[in-house]
Amino acid sequence: MRFLIKFSYDGTNFVGFQRQPNKRTIQGELEQALTKINNNKKTNIVATGRTDKKVHALIQYAHTDIDVSINENKLRRAMNTFLPDDIHVISTTIVDKDFNARYMVKEKTYKYLINLGEYNPLERFYVYQYNHSLDIERIKECAKVFVGEHDFRAFVTENKEKENCVRTITNVSVNLKNHILEITFTGNGFLKYQVRNMVGILIRAGEGKLNSSDIKKILDSKDRTKSGKTAPAEGLYLVDIKY
Amino acid sequence: MRFLIKFSYDGTNFVGFQRQPNKRTIQGELEQALTKINNNKKTNIVATGRTDKKVHALIQYAHTDIDVSINENKLRRAMNTFLPDDIHVISTTIVDKDFNARYMVKEKTYKYLINLGEYNPLERFYVYQYNHSLDIERIKECAKVFVGEHDFRAFVTENKEKENCVRTITNVSVNLKNHILEITFTGNGFLKYQVRNMVGILIRAGEGKLNSSDIKKILDSKDRTKSGKTAPAEGLYLVDIKY
Repeated sequence: MRFLIKFSYDGTNFVGFQRQPNKRTIQGELEQALTKINNNKKTNIVATGRTDKKVHALIQYAHTDIDVSINENKLRRAMNTFLPDDIHVISTTIVDKDFNARYMVKEKTYKYLINLGEYNPLERFYVYQYNHSLDIERIKECAKVFVGEHDFRAFVTENKEKENCVRTITNVSVNLKNHILEITFTGNGFLKYQVRNMVGILIRAGEGKLNSSDIKKILDSKDRTKSGKTAPAEGLYLVDIKY
Repeated sequence: MRFLIKFSYDGTNFVGFQRQPNKRTIQGELEQALTKINNNKKTNIVATGRTDKKVHALIQYAHTDIDVSINENKLRRAMNTFLPDDIHVISTTIVDKDFNARYMVKEKTYKYLINLGEYNPLERFYVYQYNHSLDIERIKECAKVFVGEHDFRAFVTENKEKENCVRTITNVSVNLKNHILEITFTGNGFLKYQVRNMVGILIRAGEGKLNSSDIKKILDSKDRTKSGKTAPAEGLYLVDIKY
């Protein structure tokens, strides 16, 4: 039986999403729990995509095939029993045998949080602390440059030269609330470090160092060396996925 | 020069507030930082009070005496340089030599957070996860019992028999917002585990097991064995102090 698993995690204490021998990864923990449930038959997952080290997910999906007879609610509860406290299964749903959690994704949404206020030790793993002022209106203006279908090569770290870097971003929103700047990106897919590189350049714009036509030029250059610093992982959250 | 230090901390990774040899405590970390700043002269602090293991503070105060010449802003910055990421100095203020951060406190406010919604792994150290429903109106009704001057002996853990347990609670508020129940207590002082024991009994009331006259009887009994379970530390925050 194929199940679609909806889950969340705190990325702080993982070396990343993808399974690695002898390292604590989100995929590794999920597969270990599923293997126990599936009568110790080695059980793998296929997730919508990977998140980087220290990146969080409020909503993430993966599919898996389970041989033992188990219903949706029992699978959810069994997984939560075996999983550590920093991964949580929200729900599981039986899906068709040809459902694919990776290839059938239509849309993903990421948010990035920047604290412009006083440092809060309780949020040190959950927000990027930025101790200078930012021009929010300029960030809003510049964020519009990313909307649409573009070759995002200039914002991808470690891309192979021939990789297709064309993606469509359908929405970017920029909101300041109680000193927390939240930048949300929705699109049909995102490449490695793309969101954090876009946030990095928007921060430089907010510092007054770039304007929207500069960012347009960087995007058009397709040259990664032009797009500057990658924003830190702790501010990034995968928050929604649509099939 | 006497300074009043305003600071915050994430209690998760400390064994408690009070200095203990070879253990990681909030007082220990603050005194270590201050000793470095004060030319390696052993420097102590006097805080408004202790918080228990894993309890957080959004606002906490302590006073200290510094011999070296330093201004308020430089002291704040130097402390934040030497302190670990889970303690943060918000400000420092020069005060009179007879100012006492412990004995001059007029009012303290604690809040307690209970998540009645889906478990969120990102908040596992910052909220008490409660997976059953609670009768919020009954909790509101019962919380009123604590307001006023009372002998809180029945809600104190580890009290010495002769200790004065009379305290005045000026306000208790109960608010549910996005599945988070927030219970706030303001008073002239709180005894060991008092807030967590009051929250514990309010949860039992919310489960329908007690009403306000039962709680009044427990308070009047002055008998700790009657007041039940202590709510877990991770939901508790020291949030305000008035001098």
